[in-house]
Amino acid sequence: MYRTHTCGELRASHIDHNVTLCGWVQKVRDKGFVIWLDLRDRYGITQLVFDEDRTSKEIIEQVKTLGREFVIQVEGTVIERASKNPNILTGDIELLVSKITVLNKALVPPFTIEDKTDGGEDIRMKYRYLDIRRNPVKDKLIFRHKVTIAVRNYLSNQGFIEVETPYLIKSTPEGARDFVVPSRMNQGQFYALPQSPQTFKQLLMVGGMDKYFQIVKCFRDEDLRADRQPEFTQIDCEMAFVEQEDILNIFEGLTRHLLKDINGVEVGEFPRMTYDDAMQKYGNDKPDIRFGMEFGELNAVAQHKEFNVFNSAELVVGIAVPGGNSYTRKEIDKLTDWVRRPQVGALGMVYCRCNDDGSYKSSVDKFYNQEDLAQWAEATNAQAGDLICVLSGDMNKVRAQLSALRMELAERLGLRKPNEFAPLWVIDFPLLELDEETGHYHAMHHPFTSPKPGQLKMLDTDPGAVKANAYDLVLNGNEIGGGSIRIHDKETQATMFKHLGFTSEEATEQFGFLMDAFQYGAPPHGGLAFGLDRLVAILGGQETIRDFIAFPKNNSGRDVMIDAPAFIDDEQLKELSLKLNSTK
Amino acid sequence: MYRTHTCGELRASHIDHNVTLCGWVQKVRDKGFVIWLDLRDRYGITQLVFDEDRTSKEIIEQVKTLGREFVIQVEGTVIERASKNPNILTGDIELLVSKITVLNKALVPPFTIEDKTDGGEDIRMKYRYLDIRRNPVKDKLIFRHKVTIAVRNYLSNQGFIEVETPYLIKSTPEGARDFVVPSRMNQGQFYALPQSPQTFKQLLMVGGMDKYFQIVKCFRDEDLRADRQPEFTQIDCEMAFVEQEDILNIFEGLTRHLLKDINGVEVGEFPRMTYDDAMQKYGNDKPDIRFGMEFGELNAVAQHKEFNVFNSAELVVGIAVPGGNSYTRKEIDKLTDWVRRPQVGALGMVYCRCNDDGSYKSSVDKFYNQEDLAQWAEATNAQAGDLICVLSGDMNKVRAQLSALRMELAERLGLRKPNEFAPLWVIDFPLLELDEETGHYHAMHHPFTSPKPGQLKMLDTDPGAVKANAYDLVLNGNEIGGGSIRIHDKETQATMFKHLGFTSEEATEQFGFLMDAFQYGAPPHGGLAFGLDRLVAILGGQETIRDFIAFPKNNSGRDVMIDAPAFIDDEQLKELSLKLNSTK
Repeated sequence: MYRTHTCGELRASHIDHNVTLCGWVQKVRDKGFVIWLDLRDRYGITQLVFDEDRTSKEIIEQVKTLGREFVIQVEGTVIERASKNPNILTGDIELLVSKITVLNKALVPPFTIEDKTDGGEDIRMKYRYLDIRRNPVKDKLIFRHKVTIAVRNYLSNQGFIEVETPYLIKSTPEGARDFVVPSRMNQGQFYALPQSPQTFKQLLMVGGMDKYFQIVKCFRDEDLRADRQPEFTQIDCEMAFVEQEDILNIFEGLTRHLLKDINGVEVGEFPRMTYDDAMQKYGNDKPDIRFGMEFGELNAVAQHKEFNVFNSAELVVGIAVPGGNSYTRKEIDKLTDWVRRPQVGALGMVYCRCNDDGSYKSSVDKFYNQEDLAQWAEATNAQAGDLICVLSGDMNKVRAQLSALRMELAERLGLRKPNEFAPLWVIDFPLLELDEETGHYHAMHHPFTSPKPGQLKMLDTDPGAVKANAYDLVLNGNEIGGGSIRIHDKETQATMFKHLGFTSEEATEQFGFLMDAFQYGAPPHGGLAFGLDRLVAILGGQETIRDFIAFPKNNSGRDVMIDAPAFIDDEQLKELSLKLNSTK
Repeated sequence: MYRTHTCGELRASHIDHNVTLCGWVQKVRDKGFVIWLDLRDRYGITQLVFDEDRTSKEIIEQVKTLGREFVIQVEGTVIERASKNPNILTGDIELLVSKITVLNKALVPPFTIEDKTDGGEDIRMKYRYLDIRRNPVKDKLIFRHKVTIAVRNYLSNQGFIEVETPYLIKSTPEGARDFVVPSRMNQGQFYALPQSPQTFKQLLMVGGMDKYFQIVKCFRDEDLRADRQPEFTQIDCEMAFVEQEDILNIFEGLTRHLLKDINGVEVGEFPRMTYDDAMQKYGNDKPDIRFGMEFGELNAVAQHKEFNVFNSAELVVGIAVPGGNSYTRKEIDKLTDWVRRPQVGALGMVYCRCNDDGSYKSSVDKFYNQEDLAQWAEATNAQAGDLICVLSGDMNKVRAQLSALRMELAERLGLRKPNEFAPLWVIDFPLLELDEETGHYHAMHHPFTSPKPGQLKMLDTDPGAVKANAYDLVLNGNEIGGGSIRIHDKETQATMFKHLGFTSEEATEQFGFLMDAFQYGAPPHGGLAFGLDRLVAILGGQETIRDFIAFPKNNSGRDVMIDAPAFIDDEQLKELSLKLNSTK
């Protein structure tokens, strides 16, 4: 027993108790006749006091040798503080120390271990174990734990069984994204790390497990975009004998439970929106509906004049920026520059001021009169004092551009409030997505997703129009989960593979086991997977997942703390029957 | 909504209710005028009834087309059974069916989906999804889920935080056992899959996380012995500011909680035994103490006569087999053959019958008289009616041989009762272990284990005698957990690496990050890891882990269901800058 209490535990009720604490030296304030030392552990900070009247000379001398982050054990008596600190739970007391034991010394840390640190991202990643001592990081890891415990108990109480599926599996046709693992016992052959336990959870449904879940690491070897990790965690779920409605209800229940249990927020029934509506109203399949600024399509009211930019566009579409009429001309020019950045890619922006007197002033007054502009205002639901921003061009591109502008403006206007939660189901996703580069269709969700009843035959005639029983759960403009009703018969699955460009041999080699399983009594089934990293971040009021991961990797997939990946011995390579390709 | 109830839910109170069920056709009994069908899902079996009086002809015809394992949906009315079945919870009722919908057909399964199946191990592994439908497998997976939920809630309530550590880490010097993962973004470099999160949990202690746990997959690329898996699951735990006593208490608490919560068994304080005692009394560092048969060392009472086999042996040691005097000469000869099998390796066995009249009859009566044998009986605690089995030879070997015999006999005598639980702490393990092949010492637990206070210097003089603050938790003769107090200062860690044969460069390259971390204020810390697969199996009254794993691999590390590992595309190899070594 190194300690009797933690540094977050002592209260006025402990006054006169003799206690032993352990922790790290956070800060020493030496006023000559009296020295205060803040001792920190996971649970809080306790103030230690040493003064000339009550503390021995030896101990005073000893305190002066202690540096920041030294690990010490102290014995002493809890006393009442002269000036209490109402900001911390131990603020009523301090510890009059009678004995100090140094458990470990510490070099001066490369950055300050304070809530606001002077350390940059790189140095904090290299010394992540020091960064974790800081409250902002430590609290996020504890928060993540609370979320996972709440998820597990909720699902378990609903009859879900957590089943561990294997990590050493087989590479799939989307193989380029698989991490592979050479097998020593089966030379020349490779396992793959799962991108998700998709096929295994479907096999568990075939196996009668009825309700499955798993909080599980998944792996994807993609070129990392910002805030993506090569290993990430999913809450993976599957149910048998269900329709889409059942799944939406169960996981709406889980999400509502988390918002209540973790955030103390009561949320009503989640709204639902079709994919087509989401694209039309928000230009995005994961709209943030905490605020309005819905798209107003303007083709009908903007393509009847001589303005060729609009007339030649597939789509003319605008949003009303609340209070945006207060922007100066310079500010509006900057907005125009913003949408023209290569990351957004618009060619330009047309605007229209909605004056307080009900009149309009646009950048294209040459072509449009007040009645025209009034119609723009009506279509975008603009009020007096707003600014209407209008983009035009190819439908898909212009929607993405205006969506980016909408999010940027909302951010600037403070409309994306971290403590406000607006969940949304987006449903009726297309089954297939056209890859514009190759001209081929691929599965928008994955190849196991079931088309809407009766639409299977449209795969031959109009594949892009086939909708799926697929759904995403969106929270505050982020996709936190997605899933679908699966195909559960061999013929439909074979048809799907064919349309995705698999030969029948390829389909059998890769997924023969699954199609075999479908022949032995597969129940109708479907499911959903939450991205845990993102879910936790958003519940925590943030959008960056990295802080919610104990040991994240950087954008090159490196762990800079342990310096991995790394070269391995020739001996190891030989055992695996592998050679590095030196022709590169 | 495919169903209103599950197949395990209906009771007498539901009589006259109209319900809809879904499930698999377990069995059809066609008596001509009446047909019964057992409908099965995860939750149980409900009997469906069809009879000439009350069921339409069409439905009777339809029932006759249903095969085993067809997936069906039925609507009907709950009625009272004429002859009730008290063996199942739904035994008071049956369902008079008014509508059948076939949700999916099924081929005849390759083995019967019954509690006792006709399928061999291989076929059941290939069709694991069908095997999981059987109660014995399904119930074990549900049991595993209950154990993990209980573990998580217990540890969480004790203030432990579950932190996910990375799966893509760095290969370590025991590298031959690492699975490696080539990195595409860092060509020529490899990640390794963790054999355990050891260094990360220690870094979390340096990071002030104080109490950590994680239920986590670990990986070891060893030639598989029976009942080992290349991927296995640990309950991994670590605590700061603790001594061995604190850790034993906490995890004794966890284990006691599981035995109570899961098995309904109350167990008192766990006994503790030193490693040396365990080896002397049971020849084994994981003794099964559900039964006696402790070793009696006989050197003092068997090396004073002309019997050279004993006189030349380092150790003569025996056990008393309860009631073993009833064995025939032939049975004893078979026992002798058993210990001489190469797997055990004894050269022979001496025995001594303890007759009911108090006299003795041994296989070496030529050398030993009744007084000698009485001393053997005393040393082995043999009673009248027992048989004393004696082995001799090199101490380590003969202990292992007699331990094997003890376990075998206990198994045959029914002394290893699956519903009796005898936990035991084995403590004071040696720090190092001599590799007899190479003559080098290696860490018995791992290189981060702390030697007993004051024994560090003995590393130079008598390394084999240094004890560690290391402990195993043994349950019913199986190691279910093990751990140690760790080294937490750089100098001691460097000394350990040196004694384990690392050059200072190797130590820095492999574990520099950990030794660096120790310089920035590492607290004293220690921990323990449970082998979840084995823990669950033993709590479930079994010793084979494979049944408690949803999708296990075979002894060649293959998943025969999905047929992994497998060859991958040249394209994939090229992307990873790898070549197969074809010179082999």
